[in-house]
Amino acid sequence: METAILRLHCCDVKGIVYNVSRFIYEHNGNIINAEQYAEAIDNRFFMRVYFDSSQLRCTRETFCEGLRELAAAFDMETAITFSDQRKRMAVMASKYDHCLYDLLLRHRYGEINADLALVVSNHRELEHVAASFHIPFFYVPVTKDTKSEAEARALELFAAHHVDFVVLARYMQILTDDFARRYEHRIINVHHGFLPAFKGAKPYHQAYEHGVKIIGATSHYATAELDMGPIIEQETMRVDHTHSVDALVAMGRDLERNVLAAAVKAHADDRIMVYQRRTIVFR
Amino acid sequence: METAILRLHCCDVKGIVYNVSRFIYEHNGNIINAEQYAEAIDNRFFMRVYFDSSQLRCTRETFCEGLRELAAAFDMETAITFSDQRKRMAVMASKYDHCLYDLLLRHRYGEINADLALVVSNHRELEHVAASFHIPFFYVPVTKDTKSEAEARALELFAAHHVDFVVLARYMQILTDDFARRYEHRIINVHHGFLPAFKGAKPYHQAYEHGVKIIGATSHYATAELDMGPIIEQETMRVDHTHSVDALVAMGRDLERNVLAAAVKAHADDRIMVYQRRTIVFR
Amino acid sequence: METAILRLHCCDVKGIVYNVSRFIYEHNGNIINAEQYAEAIDNRFFMRVYFDSSQLRCTRETFCEGLRELAAAFDMETAITFSDQRKRMAVMASKYDHCLYDLLLRHRYGEINADLALVVSNHRELEHVAASFHIPFFYVPVTKDTKSEAEARALELFAAHHVDFVVLARYMQILTDDFARRYEHRIINVHHGFLPAFKGAKPYHQAYEHGVKIIGATSHYATAELDMGPIIEQETMRVDHTHSVDALVAMGRDLERNVLAAAVKAHADDRIMVYQRRTIVFR
Amino acid sequence: METAILRLHCCDVKGIVYNVSRFIYEHNGNIINAEQYAEAIDNRFFMRVYFDSSQLRCTRETFCEGLRELAAAFDMETAITFSDQRKRMAVMASKYDHCLYDLLLRHRYGEINADLALVVSNHRELEHVAASFHIPFFYVPVTKDTKSEAEARALELFAAHHVDFVVLARYMQILTDDFARRYEHRIINVHHGFLPAFKGAKPYHQAYEHGVKIIGATSHYATAELDMGPIIEQETMRVDHTHSVDALVAMGRDLERNVLAAAVKAHADDRIMVYQRRTIVFR
Repeated sequence: METAILRLHCCDVKGIVYNVSRFIYEHNGNIINAEQYAEAIDNRFFMRVYFDSSQLRCTRETFCEGLRELAAAFDMETAITFSDQRKRMAVMASKYDHCLYDLLLRHRYGEINADLALVVSNHRELEHVAASFHIPFFYVPVTKDTKSEAEARALELFAAHHVDFVVLARYMQILTDDFARRYEHRIINVHHGFLPAFKGAKPYHQAYEHGVKIIGATSHYATAELDMGPIIEQETMRVDHTHSVDALVAMGRDLERNVLAAAVKAHADDRIMVYQRRTIVFR
Repeated sequence: METAILRLHCCDVKGIVYNVSRFIYEHNGNIINAEQYAEAIDNRFFMRVYFDSSQLRCTRETFCEGLRELAAAFDMETAITFSDQRKRMAVMASKYDHCLYDLLLRHRYGEINADLALVVSNHRELEHVAASFHIPFFYVPVTKDTKSEAEARALELFAAHHVDFVVLARYMQILTDDFARRYEHRIINVHHGFLPAFKGAKPYHQAYEHGVKIIGATSHYATAELDMGPIIEQETMRVDHTHSVDALVAMGRDLERNVLAAAVKAHADDRIMVYQRRTIVFR
Repeated sequence: METAILRLHCCDVKGIVYNVSRFIYEHNGNIINAEQYAEAIDNRFFMRVYFDSSQLRCTRETFCEGLRELAAAFDMETAITFSDQRKRMAVMASKYDHCLYDLLLRHRYGEINADLALVVSNHRELEHVAASFHIPFFYVPVTKDTKSEAEARALELFAAHHVDFVVLARYMQILTDDFARRYEHRIINVHHGFLPAFKGAKPYHQAYEHGVKIIGATSHYATAELDMGPIIEQETMRVDHTHSVDALVAMGRDLERNVLAAAVKAHADDRIMVYQRRTIVFR
Repeated sequence: METAILRLHCCDVKGIVYNVSRFIYEHNGNIINAEQYAEAIDNRFFMRVYFDSSQLRCTRETFCEGLRELAAAFDMETAITFSDQRKRMAVMASKYDHCLYDLLLRHRYGEINADLALVVSNHRELEHVAASFHIPFFYVPVTKDTKSEAEARALELFAAHHVDFVVLARYMQILTDDFARRYEHRIINVHHGFLPAFKGAKPYHQAYEHGVKIIGATSHYATAELDMGPIIEQETMRVDHTHSVDALVAMGRDLERNVLAAAVKAHADDRIMVYQRRTIVFR
């Protein structure tokens, strides 16, 4: 079955659900699931419609043209994706392998609704990991002086491999604003920080010294302007004084891979909408 | 703002969202939120629509008549409630007060979208609790020989107080089938059992002896035919060998009040649909 | 059975467990439970011993004198409490009642190993709550100009009621440094902030705007010098875009009462040791 | 630093902590951590002592001889392990790779205090996984008629590789009683069942049909006589109607690897004691 996912948001006025569902119905689509969310602060209406598009009575181009007209009438921002255009993801990693293994395994189990197109790394350590899963690996070293060339090389590789979104699987390089903007809301990062986040060096040591009882991790879209872009997923674990710094680091690995995987799944399923500084993550 | 909630389920065919949203649109309602769920096993489609009904162009009777016609056309089961018809709940309790206090407090905080009409108990111990919250309390004793009279008396009280649904807040009496059927899917119970549930007497002692690492509680609709009707909410907590039976009992109180409150909120918000042996609990 | 709890910490040298257990054994005490914890960073050894003291061969004074000698030999900081000297707690509250009710109920269930001596409030709203549980209530109003008199009055009341520790159950007044120092590590507060904490006004609104996926609360000892003293307990809950600010506030109530109750129980059980900026909370 | 772990349990009488700590002190050991637990039901005392054994004044044989005398005096069951005798584990797997990958990675991160000696499987599918981590892999096929030969072959391999304990990482064969007895309390299994466990075929489908709101997994020691031996670790996750059977299966993979890893870590650290049908898992 060929399906499509339509995401849209607009000012909350009467008739949106009706007009959207009528548009799909009149083109012979069949709604499988639809979620709406009315935002109180800005009076904004968000909608995600998952529908059977295999019986559409017109070409896809005509359908999208009609959708543009509908969007114009309601001043909607829309995005539509079709199930036969499976997304392709790039993974960027450095030396830590826990997030990379996790993504490779979940990809193979079919948990992630995307193709894993390539792995790009500024080190050679993880080449054998990608190889053991038969995923192309590219070594793109980065030095202080070659960051822009390295990013250009990565962008070339992404273009050549038709990459739709990028996952930073503990990639230990800061991206330039320009790079972040090129894949706006399409770069997923994992923040290995605690909640409440301790700033500066050795956050795990600081957490230990303060005797926190809960640690956590956060996945988010990487953005150019902000330290941390819109949050996609967060998870916490209980700790106590018996947990050594090593034990905290080990728990951090589990937290990081969990929140990163959840964010990647949600992005691949087109379940995320970004509005201002926050995400709406439909189920 | 006057609002309404429409819940429906039917065989999953094309055009349901469109026809339902058109019906609401043509009567000048405005959808605030709608959730759908397509059930894979039985090809069943569930929908909950929350809409602004303050500008309806017809009488409520005419609207409901139109809804019945729509339902007939799609062989739908439907239920509609209006925000000006606030639900009224009865609480049945015995001697344990933790669930009763929790409901009284949440009710007063405005967390529960229903009026707390009365408390019925087979003991007098909790009369002062109801009184301190200014809720009518009725003592309806139950003995082996007077169960049917007692239930008849409770039903009378419920009728007199226009009760829509009943919450068993650790009410230590088994209900008759007849009573359960009179309020089918409108009696909410809490099961104080562990997961996995140990059958028979002293479940906490059994759990202790087996060294379980997790305990839990379950809220569900009380049904006539089954020991445990459709599950509404479950919650678990981690335990270990350091937890005494007393500690487990204390944790059980917290679990019970949490899952019962979550179920009562969901029911009061018309977020639950029952289908066969299971619930769909919309958010 | 009369029991005692000995807590101590000292530099980690050989023979501490042996010497402590010998001391107890030679005085005819019987260890029921003992926990140790060796701190890696500062090479500090913490120990909590729970022992049967009903057969002690000497007076309690002699026992404590011997303990002082042992402590001197190892440069230990020690604290000992006996089960017949049940702690007495004061609760300070303002208008919010959720933490107060929770403490009153848990106290009555026997979950808190302390007497609830009195409630002090800067408002009259909760007087009836304390009254319904037969706990003395004192109205001690506070204005900008009368803070020191009000604190003096509270301290008088605490002295008169033999108060050992103070619980700030959403008490909406900032304490003076002097007050905090008088009950150092004996004032338990609950921080209603999110993790990561948003500073400034309306933290719940800020959290909503940032689309956080987890909220939390923290209980801690109130200290004079720090905004937040040593953390005792933390708890988090998952949220998403469907949670309104009202829903977040309701969840905040649950979080606050849970973390406050856990801290009060741990303090009453003499399970907490404070070292520098952090707590060790034995089980 | 050479360390040792002493675990013991006996009837709870006066002087156990004193005598054990004296024994260690007099042999010039230094206690780093000790945990005790007094069992209420059977008046049983459990103790785990972790101590620095690098300065012992006698041979290890003499120390162990002394320990046997102490054990005899108190009718204790004891077990002692030394840090230079690192445990060796065997992993048995079939075709599912999620638990195997998880153990291989955690082993490499140093999270598991044991050597991963070999992988034994009744299929060839996971040979390349073991190979990519440089762990010996042995294919030991099992048919209905060759189960005893296959088990004999596995036992031979375990003996040749000096295996101390066995991890069933989704090994899809039932062990014979004889095999289970040979490694009593040294075979760790993961139960992929739900809580409450649905018996019989297709537990995930049954859970779906009952609309459970929580799923879980359990790790335990495999025993000869019981379907499920003493529980070591359990974990749960929240689910709702939106989770398909596929989603439940994916969550099941995460649960299984988590509870299995936690059990393996605890076993490797000598933190588990088995008493009757339950475990005490020290921290």
